[in-house]
Amino acid sequence: MAKNTRAQSLEHLNDKIREFARLREWDQFHSPKNLCMALSVECAELMEHFQWLTEEQSRHLPHATKAEAATEIADVLIYLIRLSQVLDVDLLASVQAKLIANAEKYPVEKARGSAQKYTKFK
Amino acid sequence: MAKNTRAQSLEHLNDKIREFARLREWDQFHSPKNLCMALSVECAELMEHFQWLTEEQSRHLPHATKAEAATEIADVLIYLIRLSQVLDVDLLASVQAKLIANAEKYPVEKARGSAQKYTKFK
Amino acid sequence: MAKNTRAQSLEHLNDKIREFARLREWDQFHSPKNLCMALSVECAELMEHFQWLTEEQSRHLPHATKAEAATEIADVLIYLIRLSQVLDVDLLASVQAKLIANAEKYPVEKARGSAQKYTKFK
Amino acid sequence: MAKNTRAQSLEHLNDKIREFARLREWDQFHSPKNLCMALSVECAELMEHFQWLTEEQSRHLPHATKAEAATEIADVLIYLIRLSQVLDVDLLASVQAKLIANAEKYPVEKARGSAQKYTKFK
Repeated sequence: MAKNTRAQSLEHLNDKIREFARLREWDQFHSPKNLCMALSVECAELMEHFQWLTEEQSRHLPHATKAEAATEIADVLIYLIRLSQVLDVDLLASVQAKLIANAEKYPVEKARGSAQKYTKFK
Repeated sequence: MAKNTRAQSLEHLNDKIREFARLREWDQFHSPKNLCMALSVECAELMEHFQWLTEEQSRHLPHATKAEAATEIADVLIYLIRLSQVLDVDLLASVQAKLIANAEKYPVEKARGSAQKYTKFK
Repeated sequence: MAKNTRAQSLEHLNDKIREFARLREWDQFHSPKNLCMALSVECAELMEHFQWLTEEQSRHLPHATKAEAATEIADVLIYLIRLSQVLDVDLLASVQAKLIANAEKYPVEKARGSAQKYTKFK
Repeated sequence: MAKNTRAQSLEHLNDKIREFARLREWDQFHSPKNLCMALSVECAELMEHFQWLTEEQSRHLPHATKAEAATEIADVLIYLIRLSQVLDVDLLASVQAKLIANAEKYPVEKARGSAQKYTKFK
């Protein structure tokens, strides 16, 4: 991750996204249920770029496709931030907690080189 | 967004997520194509909590459901960060650029109180 | 379901879909993995029509929206049929088996008027 | 598609699915909006089986995985049928109409051996 400017800090973007919705009076539409649907729709728009590519092709996107993917990734994050706002969930604290849980579920010696779900570990 | 500690900064979590995958030798599975599928699957696990709720109910989740939703939100963000790593996309710069584009597509006077897509504005 | 003509029988459409792909030499792209992604993308295109509607509004779609939804529903079914072909899964037999399983998981007296998942039944 | 018995005809399954919901008084939950979310969730459960597989592996599923995939495919079709009921959409007529439209958008000579979207044809 590049060194981001102040204007690109997560806290700042968080504020901007909240203000964006407030000014447009979108709180009425932004129920968690609706935001979650919008989030899924944006994920699918992202996925559409990859559906017919081989994995190898997906690792080497043409410049234009990569730019489109970046835009869709931004949409996903915007809705995710917005959802965390209306649910009053602390995004980064949740990630930190989940990484700790994942480290327990996927110890290096069991998970190394394996794509198996932890429930299938022996 | 609460004041997050250094351990919860996006840069720090970004590093942790990259290292998590590296230690487990998961780069081989983490093609953009696959990560995008995993991202969509996590979104759906989040959505599962909301599918039979009314919008109003989704705004007032029981404590336990909210905690589960926070965990799924974390999963979504972890895969999104991971995807941005393998695509070499700057997450926050992309969001900033998208917010600027959205502000043009959705001027306050046209979008206020409306859930219409900008392509349908008159 | 209206009385469908022979041209609209599932068997006939199944044959048409297989032939459509064969003529265009699309078998190479139609791996189960890819078709499953395409299926999810079509589902999301369908969902996009509903994301900002209230449940009540979704029950009373304008004529044009309903026609668009019908087209997306068709896309979902086409990819589902195609997926069942490449996986060699009998679509209707699978549904029949699942309905029997669902009847056991959701006995009328427990499930009546409840949207709870069977795993939460007391 | 195997020769299905009368009990497995689409018309018969359609009736069974409608009756299943009626007996459990689920019409109240089965708004198009909610069914569409449930449909997407089931698609994702199907996709979860494929997310870490190579395309080649997805073409040669172990027997147990194939059986699980068939169950998820059934869930997708059940919700799709249910959605078509509450929207009053004729599933098979819609597919027939879409196949005709697809044949125009993807003429054999342009689409042969190509995974490009029709909007990108030259």
